[in-house]
Amino acid sequence: MRTNERRPDQLRHVELIPDYIKHPEGSVLISFGDTKVICSASVEDRVPPFLRGKGQGWITAEYAMLPRATTQRNIRESSKGKVAGRTMEIQRLIGRALRSVVDLTKIGERTIWVDCDVIQADGGTRTAAVTGAFAAVALAVSRMLEKEKIKENPLTGFLAAVSVGKSADGNALLDLDFKEDSAADVDMNVVMKSGGRLVEVQGTGEEATFSRSELNEMLDLAESGIEELFALQKEVLGEFGEELAQLQGATANA
Amino acid sequence: MRTNERRPDQLRHVELIPDYIKHPEGSVLISFGDTKVICSASVEDRVPPFLRGKGQGWITAEYAMLPRATTQRNIRESSKGKVAGRTMEIQRLIGRALRSVVDLTKIGERTIWVDCDVIQADGGTRTAAVTGAFAAVALAVSRMLEKEKIKENPLTGFLAAVSVGKSADGNALLDLDFKEDSAADVDMNVVMKSGGRLVEVQGTGEEATFSRSELNEMLDLAESGIEELFALQKEVLGEFGEELAQLQGATANA
Amino acid sequence: MRTNERRPDQLRHVELIPDYIKHPEGSVLISFGDTKVICSASVEDRVPPFLRGKGQGWITAEYAMLPRATTQRNIRESSKGKVAGRTMEIQRLIGRALRSVVDLTKIGERTIWVDCDVIQADGGTRTAAVTGAFAAVALAVSRMLEKEKIKENPLTGFLAAVSVGKSADGNALLDLDFKEDSAADVDMNVVMKSGGRLVEVQGTGEEATFSRSELNEMLDLAESGIEELFALQKEVLGEFGEELAQLQGATANA
Amino acid sequence: MRTNERRPDQLRHVELIPDYIKHPEGSVLISFGDTKVICSASVEDRVPPFLRGKGQGWITAEYAMLPRATTQRNIRESSKGKVAGRTMEIQRLIGRALRSVVDLTKIGERTIWVDCDVIQADGGTRTAAVTGAFAAVALAVSRMLEKEKIKENPLTGFLAAVSVGKSADGNALLDLDFKEDSAADVDMNVVMKSGGRLVEVQGTGEEATFSRSELNEMLDLAESGIEELFALQKEVLGEFGEELAQLQGATANA
Amino acid sequence: MRTNERRPDQLRHVELIPDYIKHPEGSVLISFGDTKVICSASVEDRVPPFLRGKGQGWITAEYAMLPRATTQRNIRESSKGKVAGRTMEIQRLIGRALRSVVDLTKIGERTIWVDCDVIQADGGTRTAAVTGAFAAVALAVSRMLEKEKIKENPLTGFLAAVSVGKSADGNALLDLDFKEDSAADVDMNVVMKSGGRLVEVQGTGEEATFSRSELNEMLDLAESGIEELFALQKEVLGEFGEELAQLQGATANA
Amino acid sequence: MRTNERRPDQLRHVELIPDYIKHPEGSVLISFGDTKVICSASVEDRVPPFLRGKGQGWITAEYAMLPRATTQRNIRESSKGKVAGRTMEIQRLIGRALRSVVDLTKIGERTIWVDCDVIQADGGTRTAAVTGAFAAVALAVSRMLEKEKIKENPLTGFLAAVSVGKSADGNALLDLDFKEDSAADVDMNVVMKSGGRLVEVQGTGEEATFSRSELNEMLDLAESGIEELFALQKEVLGEFGEELAQLQGATANA
Repeated sequence: MRTNERRPDQLRHVELIPDYIKHPEGSVLISFGDTKVICSASVEDRVPPFLRGKGQGWITAEYAMLPRATTQRNIRESSKGKVAGRTMEIQRLIGRALRSVVDLTKIGERTIWVDCDVIQADGGTRTAAVTGAFAAVALAVSRMLEKEKIKENPLTGFLAAVSVGKSADGNALLDLDFKEDSAADVDMNVVMKSGGRLVEVQGTGEEATFSRSELNEMLDLAESGIEELFALQKEVLGEFGEELAQLQGATANA
Repeated sequence: MRTNERRPDQLRHVELIPDYIKHPEGSVLISFGDTKVICSASVEDRVPPFLRGKGQGWITAEYAMLPRATTQRNIRESSKGKVAGRTMEIQRLIGRALRSVVDLTKIGERTIWVDCDVIQADGGTRTAAVTGAFAAVALAVSRMLEKEKIKENPLTGFLAAVSVGKSADGNALLDLDFKEDSAADVDMNVVMKSGGRLVEVQGTGEEATFSRSELNEMLDLAESGIEELFALQKEVLGEFGEELAQLQGATANA
Repeated sequence: MRTNERRPDQLRHVELIPDYIKHPEGSVLISFGDTKVICSASVEDRVPPFLRGKGQGWITAEYAMLPRATTQRNIRESSKGKVAGRTMEIQRLIGRALRSVVDLTKIGERTIWVDCDVIQADGGTRTAAVTGAFAAVALAVSRMLEKEKIKENPLTGFLAAVSVGKSADGNALLDLDFKEDSAADVDMNVVMKSGGRLVEVQGTGEEATFSRSELNEMLDLAESGIEELFALQKEVLGEFGEELAQLQGATANA
Repeated sequence: MRTNERRPDQLRHVELIPDYIKHPEGSVLISFGDTKVICSASVEDRVPPFLRGKGQGWITAEYAMLPRATTQRNIRESSKGKVAGRTMEIQRLIGRALRSVVDLTKIGERTIWVDCDVIQADGGTRTAAVTGAFAAVALAVSRMLEKEKIKENPLTGFLAAVSVGKSADGNALLDLDFKEDSAADVDMNVVMKSGGRLVEVQGTGEEATFSRSELNEMLDLAESGIEELFALQKEVLGEFGEELAQLQGATANA
Repeated sequence: MRTNERRPDQLRHVELIPDYIKHPEGSVLISFGDTKVICSASVEDRVPPFLRGKGQGWITAEYAMLPRATTQRNIRESSKGKVAGRTMEIQRLIGRALRSVVDLTKIGERTIWVDCDVIQADGGTRTAAVTGAFAAVALAVSRMLEKEKIKENPLTGFLAAVSVGKSADGNALLDLDFKEDSAADVDMNVVMKSGGRLVEVQGTGEEATFSRSELNEMLDLAESGIEELFALQKEVLGEFGEELAQLQGATANA
Repeated sequence: MRTNERRPDQLRHVELIPDYIKHPEGSVLISFGDTKVICSASVEDRVPPFLRGKGQGWITAEYAMLPRATTQRNIRESSKGKVAGRTMEIQRLIGRALRSVVDLTKIGERTIWVDCDVIQADGGTRTAAVTGAFAAVALAVSRMLEKEKIKENPLTGFLAAVSVGKSADGNALLDLDFKEDSAADVDMNVVMKSGGRLVEVQGTGEEATFSRSELNEMLDLAESGIEELFALQKEVLGEFGEELAQLQGATANA
């Protein structure tokens, strides 16, 4: 049995607080149990050099943890003067995932900077970040539409992510907390778009390996967990969430 | 008249939420109006090289802002690969101020790392950081005493800070918000220890200058504001706050 | 039809030249068509600090490209003073993958540094690097056994990797070259251990997405391609390759 | 009694050698006893990006010490690859202070780079740097006026700085040398503009604290020392010093 | 007697493989015995800022070694985040030497980037790099002429380099391998242009010193070795080599 | 005719002021005309890791220029966060040259750090630095002997350097100033030890080239200039200079 009597296919308590900080165009505090991430979306009226004059926008993401978000304090990356490989991997994943649900030609020559700052970590920070980042971007987009900065909705669906894994005793588990993650043989992060489409699948077994059938079992768990996250996002986005669900006939409003 | 009908000698609404994040030995979320800072104190069982074997401890502080804590997004210092001069100035100030109220020989060969992360900025982040940092350290210290990791209370008083300034029309103001700060001629940060003792006075007029009597007027305002902050800290620290007030006959409980 | 009349499930011409450079304990030049990578394994008689005194070894990998390995010249990472996110991702992948087939307790307190330097790139450099890195490590290990520096074979199987993708017209393709990769909707890297075990699955569709059945189709292609790579590795490793195949009853020698 | 029989309110021997190095538009070697700083002002015909097209100029300062300016050799900041917090604090102070006596709209779209390089240190390097920097800037300005590069004198007064402190036995001291500074309980740097106006007050007691009356006592000492420095600057600047003193009715020529 | 029965005035086996990698405009693999360097020349249609609009081009070089090109593995400069002094010295030398045989006004506003990557080192890597770099540049130039990107041959002669030294027993030696170099008292690198002209002479005796007559003896050896290298370059460059030799009446075709 | 009616074989006015700054164990201000360099030698009682426990010492050098030592202000290397290639080349040259006249086994496990800081530049800074650095080291050594920190004189001769060049009209010139250096076709730096021994010869013709006979002509000039520098060093070193000259039968006192 898992902590708090969770079933293997059960998410932790997930919460999304919209507009958590006041300056960004969109922001949320997302919690997956004790994992808490502030996600914000900042809209800038220009694009990186490689896109100038091409009539389209860009979305990029940055990820960081407060030094004491974890059980042991980590040295700040600003003090070390460089960004760790793990951080780069995560922020590249978040940016790539968001770009799969945004039609960049519909946001004009703008950059949406997404910042995911983990204030407390207990496993699954990158998937919480993806899920919260989508909500922050959707909030920013809905305001751009309201203020008529953009004319058409650039979002093509909901986007969420969850971690799954295989415990040492062979069980597939959904949404691992830090303790479970440390003990797991296989760790997989799955990002999906509404409509049952895969965006990213990253499975790794540092010391262990896994079979095709175990892969499928984990993907089944991920898929069901992500549907719940889509429903939560829809609720938090209110009217804009409804529109989003309808426009695309997304599973979220099925 | 100031925003929200504040009087010139009135603090913004100040709030201290103890144990805001779960991993650090001590942590608070401190708010001065819309300025919000997560302060945490992490205890490490070793000291920097220059203190090894000297039988005393060390306290050091780091300060950062989330990229979108401000109205315009700032580039992360980790991405730039270096820490800005302003950041260094602030974290040196916080560390120095804390060391003035801690008897380092009473914490043994330990380092207390204080992290002040601004999640939302509206002026006065450095003084909020000092005030919150003291509370986080006091929480960590009270637990070290409870767990008998240390025998004697190393704190010699309360510590708090506030900003004061001179507006362009010549009025001295307490606890400036961002808008007031931008318009002010003189900007001063005052750090005090309970008992009416000055720890740091940093007054600067980038384009303007100020007279000795204006200096005194600003210091009077700061002193009264800081007394209120001591009272708040005492309350949040509960029983340990009471002890601290009594032990030293601090003004806070006068 | 693909370049050089390749079938969708056909690898490019793959070649492994052992002992390509003279100083490392093990080295190969691996080619997948025009993609050429020098892989070397260097054995150092100490471990990183976090492993000291634990009686086990470590394997870590670094990856780089010559500036003009690509059609456009890239600025050297040493000149920029930092390692790109893509590079970090790849080298972390290579190291992790290798550790999944090495019993680190059997190499003693040693570090095996694996260097993968791409001298010419035409798609699939990271999977060529994993496949070549394994061969370089196996060569180094066989010499350590010969010289009796270690007593038991620490390798638990063969390791190889290949890229698969989905072209814009919906076909699954094995081992994409640069042109195919640029045009593909989905890009997936699969690392496997002999015996049909998955080590890493990294699938991503930056703008496109993919279904579960497309995922499975790509994994089938990858699996068959990797079996061919195991056979090649076995051949190049000579007697040690035979032993390796037998000891584990690997699919490679089936 | 202090070294060399100095009274508590007595400056060390202060000397200003104008045009100490030949290339800069203005330069001095300033000595406060054994503290020696080369200050130079370099005029560049452009402004930083944030001021382009605004019709005004900029002044910025950099500060450094030769590695063996001190009793122990310090590692060069260029070798460490980063500028220390202390250095940043000092150069920000110097720049800010200079900008308080220069009307930037009168220097056109130019930047004045001020370099303060300590060749020998014996306490009070930052205040010597401010005092010498003003003289270097004034020399550069007087030449710009002579050559008719600018039409009006942009200087609004003299600027000088001095350190004051409180010794462990409770005495206020003016212009502390290194030995006195190391033993002092409170260290304060005061920057003033002629006419009795405060520009910066930075008082700090790392382990000790200070009262309002001690603050006032130290400010009194600083004020009288700074008046002497204004007289010296006036003398060194010759005719331009006279003009400067008259134009503003500065205390320096009272 | 030297390794492989080499005479004091004998080069190691030197080989130049043209077009070793496919993407660069010109490339060679050059070997001096076991020293192997990939040299490539990349043509970019723009010049560095200091040359913009001046109607001339630029040539610059970069040099690096694979981490395990040497007997002990070296940490990558990209991981250290800075380029070593030795590397800078070598790449500055290569660039300077190439510029002495190229009429930069004849290549238009283009930059030729030369990359010299040592894949295996056994002494003399910098002189092999210069010799190979010239061949790579000449190949690139001959193609620019063929494609009529430039009208006139910008090369004014052949360029090659060799190391010479004085062994501990006082003999002058040509083209030292690593073992000889480590034991030598004096190490000298000589770069020459065809026609018997010196381009660079860099002689150094870290612990030993040398006389004028020893200098001359070493220069004699270098001169004869370099003539052989010119002949090799001419051969590898084919028809363009012939033209080059004739146009200038270079010693190479005497 | 050269500036100030100098003959081609004439040095500029050279001056050595011993003990120019008070903290280092040895220091000089050396001037070659308007080129002025502060050279200091700092003795540290430990050696770098690669020499620990080997019973010998080490000498290393660092070189820098004040930002406005030159006609145009240069950005500080500490601000850029990296040391330029030119700087590295020079400091490696200075260190290497000094080590050729010091018997490192006679200074014990100590490091002599030599700092050469150019406060005003007018050509020939690196050769002035070598010449001044030797004097600073000799002063430090003579004090170590006096204080009996070391028993035997570790210096094996005088060391000095000078630049020579070939002007565009074909004349060989000694000790070029900045203007001459900018116009010269060939630039050569020669470092010698007393007794007529060459330590370093670095000749380079960026766009021009030079013949063997021109090389010899320049070396003749260098040799005669360096003899004058030895005489000056001997004089400045006083009694220790006499001893040094006698002990080795150096040409300096011939």
